[in-house]
Amino acid sequence: MKYFEDIALGERMPVGSHTFKADEIKAFAARFDPQPFHLDESAAERSHFGALCASGWHTAVVWMRLMVDSRRRQMGEARARGEPVAATGPALGFRELKWLKPVFVDDTIDYTSEIIAARVSESRPGVGLISLCTTGVNQHGEPVISFISTTFVERRPGTS
Amino acid sequence: MKYFEDIALGERMPVGSHTFKADEIKAFAARFDPQPFHLDESAAERSHFGALCASGWHTAVVWMRLMVDSRRRQMGEARARGEPVAATGPALGFRELKWLKPVFVDDTIDYTSEIIAARVSESRPGVGLISLCTTGVNQHGEPVISFISTTFVERRPGTS
Repeated sequence: MKYFEDIALGERMPVGSHTFKADEIKAFAARFDPQPFHLDESAAERSHFGALCASGWHTAVVWMRLMVDSRRRQMGEARARGEPVAATGPALGFRELKWLKPVFVDDTIDYTSEIIAARVSESRPGVGLISLCTTGVNQHGEPVISFISTTFVERRPGTS
Repeated sequence: MKYFEDIALGERMPVGSHTFKADEIKAFAARFDPQPFHLDESAAERSHFGALCASGWHTAVVWMRLMVDSRRRQMGEARARGEPVAATGPALGFRELKWLKPVFVDDTIDYTSEIIAARVSESRPGVGLISLCTTGVNQHGEPVISFISTTFVERRPGTS
């Protein structure tokens, strides 16, 4: 992660993409969201979704995994270039989590985050707060999930 | 689920409780949130959490599982009593998802939902919309997660 001062409003960051296979859709659902349209093709055909689709929570946690991997990769690359790496905090929470379309078997979801707000913390002068709007888009260009998260980012040393 | 007309604002509904074991905390994190403080006791002790704790997404999806089980149990009981069962839709989304405290190994989280808003749908007269605030509380009485969800509930036949 870059320092707070190096982050521009409106900046878009690729997070990664993932193809949802039938087996993993069913395995996640069996453990955490055992509704028929996430577990069984025939039951899903008779449901309002019309075909097997992933739990909305599955599409959310796959983003989490891609985000952790992406951040780790970026930090490794920055360190390899000898650049300093700004500390970030865990997300404080999520707003406006929306499932906009079903994610069907073999759909590939591409996740991107956009910086929609940035401000210096009032209580912690060495820290900035950024809000990101993350969207997952399927291979047809349709948004399937979106949410807003807020997280801490370290300020450039000497700026606070 | 009861019909929309039978649901009272302020009504609190128990969802269920779950004890987070070290093995499942690590297994979930390895798949979806591989950060050191969710994966390894020693790394977690050196982190700002101070001890191994569950991914926030893990505490959210465990609620989903308990909710599906609870709804299914209630519907089975209602059918066994010969009562009609109102249809409910999938959640349309979540607002204000907050992780308020870490969930540590062997913490037991008890989830409860409260009806905080109810209105008839303007576009679908046979349907009501209810908003629920769900809170997960640990064995010390401390809230660890909260969020607001909105879902459809069928109106009592003949009322619309």
